[in-house]
Amino acid sequence: MDTERFQRGWDKLMEVDGEGGQRVIESLKDIAPDLGRYVVEFAFGEIYSREGLDLKQRQLVTIASLTTQGGCEPQLNVHIHAALNVGLTAHEIIEAITHCIPYTGFPRVLNAIFTAKHVFEERNVVLEKNVSLGI
Amino acid sequence: MDTERFQRGWDKLMEVDGEGGQRVIESLKDIAPDLGRYVVEFAFGEIYSREGLDLKQRQLVTIASLTTQGGCEPQLNVHIHAALNVGLTAHEIIEAITHCIPYTGFPRVLNAIFTAKHVFEERNVVLEKNVSLGI
Amino acid sequence: MDTERFQRGWDKLMEVDGEGGQRVIESLKDIAPDLGRYVVEFAFGEIYSREGLDLKQRQLVTIASLTTQGGCEPQLNVHIHAALNVGLTAHEIIEAITHCIPYTGFPRVLNAIFTAKHVFEERNVVLEKNVSLGI
Amino acid sequence: MDTERFQRGWDKLMEVDGEGGQRVIESLKDIAPDLGRYVVEFAFGEIYSREGLDLKQRQLVTIASLTTQGGCEPQLNVHIHAALNVGLTAHEIIEAITHCIPYTGFPRVLNAIFTAKHVFEERNVVLEKNVSLGI
Amino acid sequence: MDTERFQRGWDKLMEVDGEGGQRVIESLKDIAPDLGRYVVEFAFGEIYSREGLDLKQRQLVTIASLTTQGGCEPQLNVHIHAALNVGLTAHEIIEAITHCIPYTGFPRVLNAIFTAKHVFEERNVVLEKNVSLGI
Amino acid sequence: MDTERFQRGWDKLMEVDGEGGQRVIESLKDIAPDLGRYVVEFAFGEIYSREGLDLKQRQLVTIASLTTQGGCEPQLNVHIHAALNVGLTAHEIIEAITHCIPYTGFPRVLNAIFTAKHVFEERNVVLEKNVSLGI
Repeated sequence: MDTERFQRGWDKLMEVDGEGGQRVIESLKDIAPDLGRYVVEFAFGEIYSREGLDLKQRQLVTIASLTTQGGCEPQLNVHIHAALNVGLTAHEIIEAITHCIPYTGFPRVLNAIFTAKHVFEERNVVLEKNVSLGI
Repeated sequence: MDTERFQRGWDKLMEVDGEGGQRVIESLKDIAPDLGRYVVEFAFGEIYSREGLDLKQRQLVTIASLTTQGGCEPQLNVHIHAALNVGLTAHEIIEAITHCIPYTGFPRVLNAIFTAKHVFEERNVVLEKNVSLGI
Repeated sequence: MDTERFQRGWDKLMEVDGEGGQRVIESLKDIAPDLGRYVVEFAFGEIYSREGLDLKQRQLVTIASLTTQGGCEPQLNVHIHAALNVGLTAHEIIEAITHCIPYTGFPRVLNAIFTAKHVFEERNVVLEKNVSLGI
Repeated sequence: MDTERFQRGWDKLMEVDGEGGQRVIESLKDIAPDLGRYVVEFAFGEIYSREGLDLKQRQLVTIASLTTQGGCEPQLNVHIHAALNVGLTAHEIIEAITHCIPYTGFPRVLNAIFTAKHVFEERNVVLEKNVSLGI
Repeated sequence: MDTERFQRGWDKLMEVDGEGGQRVIESLKDIAPDLGRYVVEFAFGEIYSREGLDLKQRQLVTIASLTTQGGCEPQLNVHIHAALNVGLTAHEIIEAITHCIPYTGFPRVLNAIFTAKHVFEERNVVLEKNVSLGI
Repeated sequence: MDTERFQRGWDKLMEVDGEGGQRVIESLKDIAPDLGRYVVEFAFGEIYSREGLDLKQRQLVTIASLTTQGGCEPQLNVHIHAALNVGLTAHEIIEAITHCIPYTGFPRVLNAIFTAKHVFEERNVVLEKNVSLGI
């Protein structure tokens, strides 16, 4: 194991994903600990530790990728928490998911929005209503 | 908001998806009302309101698209209800999903069939058995 | 080999895909002849030979599935030919692809439309313009 | 129905998927019995009955395909059971899923690993820990 | 046609995609003019005209969505041009695509990077080398 | 850069992908050298260097994953070369791709088979015909 890279990744994981990320790594301990290690070392120790984009920009990219891919609701849950952790507002997260409609269609966007709704409720994030449907 | 297009879309949504569609729009009110508005205005006020294919044909296309895409079981549930609403028989719905096997493989088709089974049970739709397995 | 099922599949393949389907089967002869046999026996001898949907309805389902799946332009080419062969109009084919926008987004729909454009040009199918953009 | 092919497929289904496969076929009896028949006749009577790869190799391919495709957790559950049935070790199954990381990314791999974890717990399969994370 | 929304969308399309977007709309004129109209009215007149994210953030989301989806190289080409048009640097575009590795794997990222390479060459964008491989 | 892991990865890349892999890494030098480095260090220095599955088994998994994913023909080309390099026969490669039909459908399998056909022709691999279609 590459201790330095693991530590850098772990610190980044804590900064970005926080408790949700830690839970994923721990749930892998008895079944696929190396998978947890690669998440820490590669995804966070390498990719998330790169320069060139800040953490808010990286979370926009992550959310768009997970929304588009579909079937990744558990990971989207962790990364919507992460988006809030690094300073994106709930409004920006909803905007980013909404922006995917023309590229990936309504169904994947709806699934992602309902995942965000669940996260916002867990964290008591209040979203100021910005458009009224009047229905 | 474009009132006329919204109204046209709302009427079409009610005709096609009925209560299930209404529930989706309402569940978006506090989190992403514009997403609900786009479903109404664009998906139903524009696309579903086009000429050239009737509503039964459109539901065949919708079911094939959602079956193939995967991970869209909630939307497939709404649109299997919709398919029955516009006059497709349960038998035709099963045929359309079954027809996707060569294109998208068994797993996505199985997921869609079990979604249909759930919808048919909710609505007490009886499917006359047309093939006996004898096992 | 199941001669009867193969023959039934071959006749159906000729009826639906015609020359384009035959070319696919023949191009498999030296590399994976069984794959060609399964296309004939299973996809056409079983699935396409089922009752419950007519060939026009089946081609709507096929086109929606291939459009949504993405990366299947060669198969979409064959099946847009097939859609014309079984009596769908160019206008209905364009409508079916257009109907997929809300489900799968613009990029896959654009790819499918350009495939259709190519097929229509090959066959000198003239599409009466039904909407003017005025640009 | 092609009795011989059905019987060959059924025997192969029992050998590979066992009880889990039988349950899938039975759950289709009232809704889409032909779909069950095609799983038996085509997937098992044809594809799984081919020579050229043994059943362990076939299950590696199946698991990779289902992991990559996403949204197929029920089918992955059946086929992780099947992988154990034909003699792959829990360790080899975890390796095969882990090997997909560079091709399909962490989210689909995580979903597959958690499906495997669930199967191993159901069967009391103990996985000797081969790497310690030390966290 | 909704003239105001079309005009707003057209202006936005010109601002973001420029010539590449215009070429797509024009190539649809004889085959599916309404598809072109929806790209203008809905994707640009509605989605891209929303507040809450600026155009650079929107292009990060678009690029992540198209990279992840796969098979959308023509659209990715247009939107990498667009990303440069709205002020993202070549370096930020490469970073955004690279950030998708853990979510969608190397193959889709490689395809997107080679699309970016092609766009940068077309525009004579010089990317300052920031890492030396030394091979 | 982690020299030891890079060297281990480079050696493994040469053993598995050979010239084709080298060409990919080199083509990234001016645009995204870190992406090339991650392919070497992570995909080959970590994943391919793991124990638990041999290289033939790993290539079966890789081919199944790339076939299923779709739109990865360039990567599939490299990895069909790689499969031959590590000792899989052309026949086993065709079998592995064929085995994916029930999971991912005919179109993705056809695309993969034609990629294999191209690779076998490049390398003058002769595939003994094992099934005669008689058409």
